Amino acid sequence: MDERAALSLVGDRVAAAGDDCAVVDDLVVTTDMLHETTDFPDGTSRYTAGWRSVGASLSDVAAMGAEATAAVAVYGAPQFDADEIAAFIEGCLDVCEAVDAEYVGGDLDGHEEFTVATTAFGQTDAPVYRSGASPGDAVCVTGTLGRSAAALRRFEAGDTERGNELFRFEPRVAAGRGVAPHATAMMDSSDGLARSLHQLAAASGCGFAIEADAIPVAPAVEEVADGPSDRRELAVHFGEDFELVATMPETAVDAAAEASPVALTRVGTVTESGVTMDGEALPDRGYTH
Amino acid sequence: MDERAALSLVGDRVAAAGDDCAVVDDLVVTTDMLHETTDFPDGTSRYTAGWRSVGASLSDVAAMGAEATAAVAVYGAPQFDADEIAAFIEGCLDVCEAVDAEYVGGDLDGHEEFTVATTAFGQTDAPVYRSGASPGDAVCVTGTLGRSAAALRRFEAGDTERGNELFRFEPRVAAGRGVAPHATAMMDSSDGLARSLHQLAAASGCGFAIEADAIPVAPAVEEVADGPSDRRELAVHFGEDFELVATMPETAVDAAAEASPVALTRVGTVTESGVTMDGEALPDRGYTH
Repeated sequence: MDERAALSLVGDRVAAAGDDCAVVDDLVVTTDMLHETTDFPDGTSRYTAGWRSVGASLSDVAAMGAEATAAVAVYGAPQFDADEIAAFIEGCLDVCEAVDAEYVGGDLDGHEEFTVATTAFGQTDAPVYRSGASPGDAVCVTGTLGRSAAALRRFEAGDTERGNELFRFEPRVAAGRGVAPHATAMMDSSDGLARSLHQLAAASGCGFAIEADAIPVAPAVEEVADGPSDRRELAVHFGEDFELVATMPETAVDAAAEASPVALTRVGTVTESGVTMDGEALPDRGYTH
Repeated sequence: MDERAALSLVGDRVAAAGDDCAVVDDLVVTTDMLHETTDFPDGTSRYTAGWRSVGASLSDVAAMGAEATAAVAVYGAPQFDADEIAAFIEGCLDVCEAVDAEYVGGDLDGHEEFTVATTAFGQTDAPVYRSGASPGDAVCVTGTLGRSAAALRRFEAGDTERGNELFRFEPRVAAGRGVAPHATAMMDSSDGLARSLHQLAAASGCGFAIEADAIPVAPAVEEVADGPSDRRELAVHFGEDFELVATMPETAVDAAAEASPVALTRVGTVTESGVTMDGEALPDRGYTH
């Protein structure tokens, strides 16, 4: 059973599961586990690991259009090294500070593999779900795509400084807050744009028609991409970017863009069914965590 | 650096850390990681693992005197087996139901070792910390001690059914709610009574004088203990029992006991300094997670 099938099993049993966050009254809550072999390439600093792990959960809070309240993290490692733990905590503190959330600690666990579990929560009285997109809506993304893919290339090339820098992203909490009042559906792009669109399509019972040229590709991708097809792979399928993908009425796009502190780019239209890019089927392929 | 030294490092940097839960406005939040090699003996069912993992976090919520609101869990395992995941989720749902909390899902993570990360949160406008005990107060415990130690013996003897049954504990949320208005300090006994007393002593700047005969020992311990010294080891030092240890003015003990749906037993007195049992130093020895 692969992870997606298993997640669907969880969704069948737990009513609150299946969106970026679970909603309990006016709270939203989300939890993630990341670990060395799949999430932290060689060269990832403990500071970056703390930033990125907590950031991933804060991104889910952002995707609900919520204010970020606080986050906790469990640090599991074979040894407890004072400098590594201190650096990890600084990363957690700094990413929380970047979105006006409070980092309130967590737990330590002796663990064979470096493993981090994070939980973030936030507050909103009007959460935005994945399920509200309607044919005719515009679909937009915040910021640029492909930054984490570019980071991985940098790590592979041994440029750990640039890799770490690209790996630390700002969770789009402020953008989510600004866009939320206009949005009909929203999620983060952690599995890549293509897979995110397929997930929104499934949740909303709609399709998407995307224009390739409209996709805002991260400058860092241009530096590492090996031709246009590689460029598209990194920007559209790789994922791990933690940008927001939101749908909204065409008439609301300008107001939403104005309310977002980062660029909000219209990349296509919500359709009745099917997910296409430039008229061709866009495969549901991306990063499975 | 051992786990306790590392936790103290975290406490130096993160103001909210160091109690059973972090407190953010009227929310309390706690997170834990458990894994196969150290927390789930051979024979532990996935149902029990779900119950126990989420229960451990709910116990921390109870220790603050808070209502339990909700919990999430990450399930990390080498394979995703539908029956195992379903059983795990049932355990999470049932332990939440037992304390009127909502289980709102979580995440799945492919992981070499079976690893569970849980987060629970609750609400209270009057959290009880570890730091309020005063000399002259009584110190009490809920329920009985040694149940998890007895469970481990059962697992070791191959009696997995009884082991699993003993391993599923009811988090003391209702008792915590009842006792909280009377308590000066409270924590859960997850590291064992002895270590919990040392932790309360450090946080409150006090000592404890405990009477061995007063300690409520779980009937399951009597069944497995090999003589009085083993009996004491299992009840006082082994830990993992998730009972509450609370201090309160002597005059409040009867009212607190009445407000608790489980037995609340007075086991000793808060003193100026030192932790003793029957007048002899009680070593700060217990389970280090």
